[in-house]
Amino acid sequence: MVTGLDLKTVSIYAPVADQLAQVEGQLRQLCQTDIADLDPLLDYALRSGGKRVRPALTLLAAEFHPHDPSRSQIMAAAVELLHLATLIHDDTVDNAGMRRGKPTINKLYGNHVAVLLGDYLFATSATFVCDTGVVRVIRRFSETIMELASGQLIEFFTTFDSQKARKLYNERIYRKTASLFCTSAESGAILGNASEDEVRALRAYGHNIGMAFQIVDDLLDVQGDAAEIGKPVGNDLLQGVLTLPSIMLMERYPDDQPIEALFRAIKTGDGDVEDLLERSLTMINDSDIIPDCFTTIRDYCSVAAAALDALADCPSRRSLLHMVDYIRERTR
Amino acid sequence: MVTGLDLKTVSIYAPVADQLAQVEGQLRQLCQTDIADLDPLLDYALRSGGKRVRPALTLLAAEFHPHDPSRSQIMAAAVELLHLATLIHDDTVDNAGMRRGKPTINKLYGNHVAVLLGDYLFATSATFVCDTGVVRVIRRFSETIMELASGQLIEFFTTFDSQKARKLYNERIYRKTASLFCTSAESGAILGNASEDEVRALRAYGHNIGMAFQIVDDLLDVQGDAAEIGKPVGNDLLQGVLTLPSIMLMERYPDDQPIEALFRAIKTGDGDVEDLLERSLTMINDSDIIPDCFTTIRDYCSVAAAALDALADCPSRRSLLHMVDYIRERTR
Repeated sequence: MVTGLDLKTVSIYAPVADQLAQVEGQLRQLCQTDIADLDPLLDYALRSGGKRVRPALTLLAAEFHPHDPSRSQIMAAAVELLHLATLIHDDTVDNAGMRRGKPTINKLYGNHVAVLLGDYLFATSATFVCDTGVVRVIRRFSETIMELASGQLIEFFTTFDSQKARKLYNERIYRKTASLFCTSAESGAILGNASEDEVRALRAYGHNIGMAFQIVDDLLDVQGDAAEIGKPVGNDLLQGVLTLPSIMLMERYPDDQPIEALFRAIKTGDGDVEDLLERSLTMINDSDIIPDCFTTIRDYCSVAAAALDALADCPSRRSLLHMVDYIRERTR
Repeated sequence: MVTGLDLKTVSIYAPVADQLAQVEGQLRQLCQTDIADLDPLLDYALRSGGKRVRPALTLLAAEFHPHDPSRSQIMAAAVELLHLATLIHDDTVDNAGMRRGKPTINKLYGNHVAVLLGDYLFATSATFVCDTGVVRVIRRFSETIMELASGQLIEFFTTFDSQKARKLYNERIYRKTASLFCTSAESGAILGNASEDEVRALRAYGHNIGMAFQIVDDLLDVQGDAAEIGKPVGNDLLQGVLTLPSIMLMERYPDDQPIEALFRAIKTGDGDVEDLLERSLTMINDSDIIPDCFTTIRDYCSVAAAALDALADCPSRRSLLHMVDYIRERTR
């Protein structure tokens, strides 16, 4: 069974541990604005935890050549802030009540505050990126925000629609997840004075690890443990969001699977939603879908690892490979 | 009585009319994405009209020296897009049903789509600014998005609270409105190769005209005509938002004004909201508050006009002065 990644507990971040602490300090400083009412909100949003995978990726990708660490650190803070901003808006539009086992901003302070706080954090992340002074990474960052938003829009446009969901699945998970992994690694590489070949390699690494990461997340939703993932199991299906395992179920058993009935029940109120969800999840877990999703994850991991062939051996490269292994191990 | 500004109908934009048409074309091109479901939404958002005051300001501010017009035009498109993005989020958080006489995005497509479409437009505006290639204007733009979001947050934190609202009034209207006017003019000046003194002057011009603009807007809400402004009169007070005229009413008649009772009625459901709103608006309109707000608007206009003393006479400067006169004329 796939379990939640807890990269913090392993030694992967070791080569950049001190720098990550600096980044954490930069994020904490955000909670001292000139608007008294805003500070506790920022504090809550920043304390929401998370594994800081994206900033670690930026810092590790920057370590291949001598460089100015202040620029990669500010970039690392920016990618984490952007991630936090998207979580706040995602929870708001999904009307989610819990995230990582804690009440969401929208739940605690209302949608109004959540939308505006998300906007504020989006903008703050952009000012951080501007502090790198490098237009190429600033532009890439803005494009990433577009991809994140359009990925969420694709998710919305494809809810309850298995054909559309299948057709746009890869595009959607690239935009909503892999894009930011890609940009985290690519920006680190650029600010770390990497060659164009190295930038391309780290970009490919980020892309593929991001795709793998999203499918792990999709699997957690169908077979995770609510306490561990900090939100209800089966949440995607209840929202009409079709992920790789549920798409596979519908494709493989077009005439004999409970998802269509589940969607009808959700939309019309006619049918036992809980029972149909349970049956959908059981059918996914009892079929060969999970091993096949594992294969897809491992394929992305292999491409990510292979991309690193273009880079010289060093502690940072070993950490990036370690990250791949760590995800791979989740698929056993 | 103050009436809606319709700068388009006058000759103010004449020196940059061709360029504004180019900007309009750039905005229209946004409606051709690779996501079929997204295009009609973008089309609707961009067709929502508006007077294009901010892009005109950018283009006019750029006209004082020879410069590359493609950069000021892309900047002009960016400030308009940012403005549209903020309107979409503002309408969503205010749960507004109408804007400029048309149903809002949140009303037509739901809050979910409105939040994500706003995010998409924020990000698109940022990529446009990146195309200028000038880090100084990119950074200023990101700070402006922070100011816009924090201005809206201040508005939220000060609803139904007259003391806080008074204390933070100038800061709030600077952030939510004047900031973008400021940045529109400042960015145009920078991209138009203005000297630092000229940049400062155009920034001051934008700031002061933006403050005047917001107070005109506040007045429209207490004395405008619903059909003309395209939304219900008294909407600010119904949302608990205290603007200059209502703050003045509470300050001048602390023991004898209906706003406290109106707020109580809104919050508790105990009292005749419609009657109390009517009495509040009548009391504002029958007192010397409106002429005093006019004076404040004219003061901002005078400072804006004086700022232009630092600039050489040319068609663009005459247009900027004309814009000041146009706002001033609304206060008779």
